[in-house]
Amino acid sequence: MLLLSGEDVQRLLPMNEAMGVIKEAYRIYAKKDYQMPERIFAKVKEDDRYLLMPCLADDCISLKVVVSYPSNQNRESPVTQGVVLVNDLETGDPLAVVNGTVLTAIKTGAVSGVAMEIFRHDAESVGLVGTGYQGIYQLMAACSATSVKKVYLYNRTREKLKPFIEEFRRLSSRELEIISVEDVQELIRKSDIIITATTSLTPVLPNVPSLYKGKVVIGVGSYDHDMREFPRALFEGVDYYYIDSEQGKVECGDIIDPLKNGWVKDEQVILMSDLLEQKKKVEADRTRPIVFKTVSMALFDACVANYLYKKAKKLGVGFSYRI
Amino acid sequence: MLLLSGEDVQRLLPMNEAMGVIKEAYRIYAKKDYQMPERIFAKVKEDDRYLLMPCLADDCISLKVVVSYPSNQNRESPVTQGVVLVNDLETGDPLAVVNGTVLTAIKTGAVSGVAMEIFRHDAESVGLVGTGYQGIYQLMAACSATSVKKVYLYNRTREKLKPFIEEFRRLSSRELEIISVEDVQELIRKSDIIITATTSLTPVLPNVPSLYKGKVVIGVGSYDHDMREFPRALFEGVDYYYIDSEQGKVECGDIIDPLKNGWVKDEQVILMSDLLEQKKKVEADRTRPIVFKTVSMALFDACVANYLYKKAKKLGVGFSYRI
Repeated sequence: MLLLSGEDVQRLLPMNEAMGVIKEAYRIYAKKDYQMPERIFAKVKEDDRYLLMPCLADDCISLKVVVSYPSNQNRESPVTQGVVLVNDLETGDPLAVVNGTVLTAIKTGAVSGVAMEIFRHDAESVGLVGTGYQGIYQLMAACSATSVKKVYLYNRTREKLKPFIEEFRRLSSRELEIISVEDVQELIRKSDIIITATTSLTPVLPNVPSLYKGKVVIGVGSYDHDMREFPRALFEGVDYYYIDSEQGKVECGDIIDPLKNGWVKDEQVILMSDLLEQKKKVEADRTRPIVFKTVSMALFDACVANYLYKKAKKLGVGFSYRI
Repeated sequence: MLLLSGEDVQRLLPMNEAMGVIKEAYRIYAKKDYQMPERIFAKVKEDDRYLLMPCLADDCISLKVVVSYPSNQNRESPVTQGVVLVNDLETGDPLAVVNGTVLTAIKTGAVSGVAMEIFRHDAESVGLVGTGYQGIYQLMAACSATSVKKVYLYNRTREKLKPFIEEFRRLSSRELEIISVEDVQELIRKSDIIITATTSLTPVLPNVPSLYKGKVVIGVGSYDHDMREFPRALFEGVDYYYIDSEQGKVECGDIIDPLKNGWVKDEQVILMSDLLEQKKKVEADRTRPIVFKTVSMALFDACVANYLYKKAKKLGVGFSYRI
């Protein structure tokens, strides 16, 4: 069994390669050439959760085990941790245990990266609302997918900005101008692409329709029914609402609520996989907002884990252990 | 993260200790002091299956990942393989990855061992029908739980007997007289305890009521709806039908069919955990059969994995890896 640590995953998976894997995953999703059994979701205590995300795809069976522990906020253990177990689909053999925390961060970045590349590869400015761990990989994705030169950051807790910038500089060699702002409206006005990466229960973007004209807005944070980052105003004047997974329609407040409230119609909701497969050219209409929401899915993790395993074997990276 | 190989598990878990862990698991089961989310069960191809068995109990979250691949019959990979992942319940931290194949074999042996100890600790002869991998650990359990001196073996494929005996002798130091028989009736007549450990779809014991008078019969093999090791005759004259897990009533042919057909009534089906908690003394009536069926459950795996992790940490066994 091959063990791949967080450092191994970082080394093996540059953002542009991860984006390639996500595009391949979209192709598998469009062909329905996978099996995703329903997730297991256990309440451990208070808001702490234990989540199992299995997927059979390509030549592997992948299982992501995620622990989401808000109660770790003031502990040494991370709030979100993950491990991915890979089995061989043909023989069932356990092949690898992969650090799922770094895998998830890079993967989520890559999903946004693919959307940025499609919708606004020539963006020069990106605004990020929410400077948690995930935000760093969102910026790395912007560096891979666009011509970004300026980044605007907003975080409710301002003390988090400095360590965030330091960590980004440590992981990325790209020379970006990074500006912290105190007003989200200013961030939106100055950015071509706006990314929200919070776990907010109420919209983190202002309810002002005019702000979003010609912007590409990407929602990363909300994943549960009761979570919302997007305001109603964002949907005024959109042609389509792009999402990465059908499951989002039943899982995620930022998709459920706009549909339920009629801010977008079901036929306006477009799967990225369909967009990619039809090779439909999306002309970024500079007068309308383009909105993409990712809730992710086990298939992405499976494709990334499989890619990592194969690349690691080829390069002799990781630690091999006879379990 | 601590890695425990098959050899580590073997070294850390003598059968008598495993039986102690199972008794503790029964106590937890009786108190309902656990959380067992529903299993995920995926059809991979033909009869090959992928099974996830999570359980939250004591101070850990345990997940057994089992691959059951009949298609490996003529391959190098084992037909059944498992890995157990242990997380800390308090912090969510991944703590250990444990060889689940050996863990399962010892655990299943220990579940039978507890039944043998309760129902016929003074047994001097044990008959085993089905000499697969699991059978070895059933005999080791008999050695721990009873005064067994003679073992009778039956297997449909006779060539499997010799390697089975060799493997048992390798793992156990107990001096037993081991006799292969060609007739299951002879095996039953000569044995105080009869254990079935096959994956048969039709009864492997003969449908002759008189054979079972005063015998203790333990069913280990069947775990699915369509599996059956026990014949109707076995239930004639039983006072109770002992089982280890409530789930067996909906999962296992050897419990479903006898209930459906009225061979035993629902009120005759007794959970071992209830028997143990009430400390009810069962006088083995030498004129009636005593029947126990195990289908196992994730709680057993969780308790065993947790025990292994703690013992390994204490003794410095296993390999520690920073994932």
